[in-house]
Amino acid sequence: MGRVYNFSAGPAVLPEEVLIRARDEMLDWRASGMSVMEMSHRGKEFISIARKAEADLRELMAIPANYKILFLQGGATAQFAAVPMNLLRGRRKADYVNTGHWSKRAIAEAKKYCEVHIAASSEDRNFSYVPPQERWELSSDAAYVHITSNETIGGVEYHWIPDTGDVPLVADASSHILSRPIDVSRFGLIYAGAQKNIGPAGLAIVIVREDLIGGALPITPAIFDYKVQAENESMLNTPPTFALYMAGLVFEWLKEKGGLAAMERINLEKARLLYDLLDSSDFYASPVAKADRSRMNVPFTLKDPALEEEFLRQAKAHGLVQLKGHRSVGGMRASIYNAMPIEGVRALVEFMRDFAAKHG
Amino acid sequence: MGRVYNFSAGPAVLPEEVLIRARDEMLDWRASGMSVMEMSHRGKEFISIARKAEADLRELMAIPANYKILFLQGGATAQFAAVPMNLLRGRRKADYVNTGHWSKRAIAEAKKYCEVHIAASSEDRNFSYVPPQERWELSSDAAYVHITSNETIGGVEYHWIPDTGDVPLVADASSHILSRPIDVSRFGLIYAGAQKNIGPAGLAIVIVREDLIGGALPITPAIFDYKVQAENESMLNTPPTFALYMAGLVFEWLKEKGGLAAMERINLEKARLLYDLLDSSDFYASPVAKADRSRMNVPFTLKDPALEEEFLRQAKAHGLVQLKGHRSVGGMRASIYNAMPIEGVRALVEFMRDFAAKHG
Repeated sequence: MGRVYNFSAGPAVLPEEVLIRARDEMLDWRASGMSVMEMSHRGKEFISIARKAEADLRELMAIPANYKILFLQGGATAQFAAVPMNLLRGRRKADYVNTGHWSKRAIAEAKKYCEVHIAASSEDRNFSYVPPQERWELSSDAAYVHITSNETIGGVEYHWIPDTGDVPLVADASSHILSRPIDVSRFGLIYAGAQKNIGPAGLAIVIVREDLIGGALPITPAIFDYKVQAENESMLNTPPTFALYMAGLVFEWLKEKGGLAAMERINLEKARLLYDLLDSSDFYASPVAKADRSRMNVPFTLKDPALEEEFLRQAKAHGLVQLKGHRSVGGMRASIYNAMPIEGVRALVEFMRDFAAKHG
Repeated sequence: MGRVYNFSAGPAVLPEEVLIRARDEMLDWRASGMSVMEMSHRGKEFISIARKAEADLRELMAIPANYKILFLQGGATAQFAAVPMNLLRGRRKADYVNTGHWSKRAIAEAKKYCEVHIAASSEDRNFSYVPPQERWELSSDAAYVHITSNETIGGVEYHWIPDTGDVPLVADASSHILSRPIDVSRFGLIYAGAQKNIGPAGLAIVIVREDLIGGALPITPAIFDYKVQAENESMLNTPPTFALYMAGLVFEWLKEKGGLAAMERINLEKARLLYDLLDSSDFYASPVAKADRSRMNVPFTLKDPALEEEFLRQAKAHGLVQLKGHRSVGGMRASIYNAMPIEGVRALVEFMRDFAAKHG
């Protein structure tokens, strides 16, 4: 089979140009005689790769100088623990907004380290929307406010940045980081697992305001301590060197494509194509409130769930794969991250139109 | 430049056959239309890769059925915290044997979670030997006994397995795992970062006796909890999929080479070549007691330290790289892991002989 259109929610499609470059450099990176995988992380070759990746990410996201960028291991799930371990700073409570599966995972982990106050929840309507800020009940003594700014499974995305005043806003942006420009200065901390919009699994990125680090709980493992990692340029121990190299190639690719403003234009168009089909058809439906629909993860249902297996089978035969929804919600889901070309979305829309015509 | 002989202590040389296969499969793994990096970790393709890697490792090391194999993130440094978090099981003390840099790192981290008793130390002679067991002072109430079974920086290796009776023996085997057969049943837990003898950085392996898991401290992050990870086949969250795939290719390569008994024969011969030169020359010297010398990491000194820069420069010109010793101890170090072919060691020995003849 040739390359397919892969709608996996993560690990997910990578830009083909990036994979080709990684392939071509696999045995010998720039006449070093070594694969990037074989390089000492303390050697000048790899240090140059890591520093360029950081500089390119800082440029792409316009990250202010008073924010540290950390490249860590353990995925966003490690950050579910690391965030309270580092950011409580003597307080005992944190506010969380519950918008679905990944919010709940973050909340469950935070409860090991502090009192969690649910400031708002969309559970009343099956996590199909983002609770508007006027309904949030923030604590006066919270160490931080945590949101999941894009719910990968539910397909719900914040298209606005909450105002939490002097209380630092923390966002798990795993599944929409780099999909659009954002004002980083409005956040105390942004974290993301790499395996959706950044690069391969095994890397997580933490962007944290400097004044928030340095007060980790005594029980914090060294690799989770933001201050220790910042002082060591994320190399307290051996970092996931190849994953970081791949992320760096993706950052270069994004810059060549025109940066995040250009990506946002394409992502808007891709999302429009797919949601327009869902809204114009009574064969398909989107479970998510229109204003809060994710541009990255598009869950949808078929009017007749008995057709799901056939839908997946025929889609695969058309080279459209990984469209099955998460086992916790069922239905279908198309993840259309930066690396999914618009041609892939067009092919999906065309297939879906034909399928509906045949089976509607 | 063509491929060099890379003596890095880690990340380290990988078998060229493995890199070639990874390159050839980079854009399309077995007609899946996807790179391994792009596959959902829950899909049948990746599950088959992960299960084969586990089965091959179990076969290679003859790991008994009552041991779990976990593929985790965070390197051995994460395990410095995870081991006490999981293995204290109501006890408050653990015994550690201090044989150098990596022992000290493990000890410092364990002190966050328990009382650490130093059962033995080789600090009296600059960590140049393994304290014989008759001098160990084990506690009666230790939850476990921890050793660093190969010190990557000091070049000191246990060529015997300590007897700790009913107290579980825990080994950080990062830099010599897979270099020889070992009797896993003598250990409660063996852990290793991948980036020396297993595969790329970003993966760690934990082999743990089943009866030791299930009693993690309440403050244990979920990704560190062996029971949670075992129940989820190391997929509580997205694993470092590509690193695990690469490790699996290395396991297949080891099986093709005849397994660990065959590797031990080659490793003994490689080490003999290098130590024979060091012992027969008064230009070079090994700082390590003969009985405790590592087969994997060979530190050595030049009689005249002023020649070190010239040695490194000329070695590099001969395609022999990453020979500089760790900044904490100076001198030189040749790491000769499984993937270093004997031809590389021969080339190094020949170069060293010539260099000594010219400058001696």
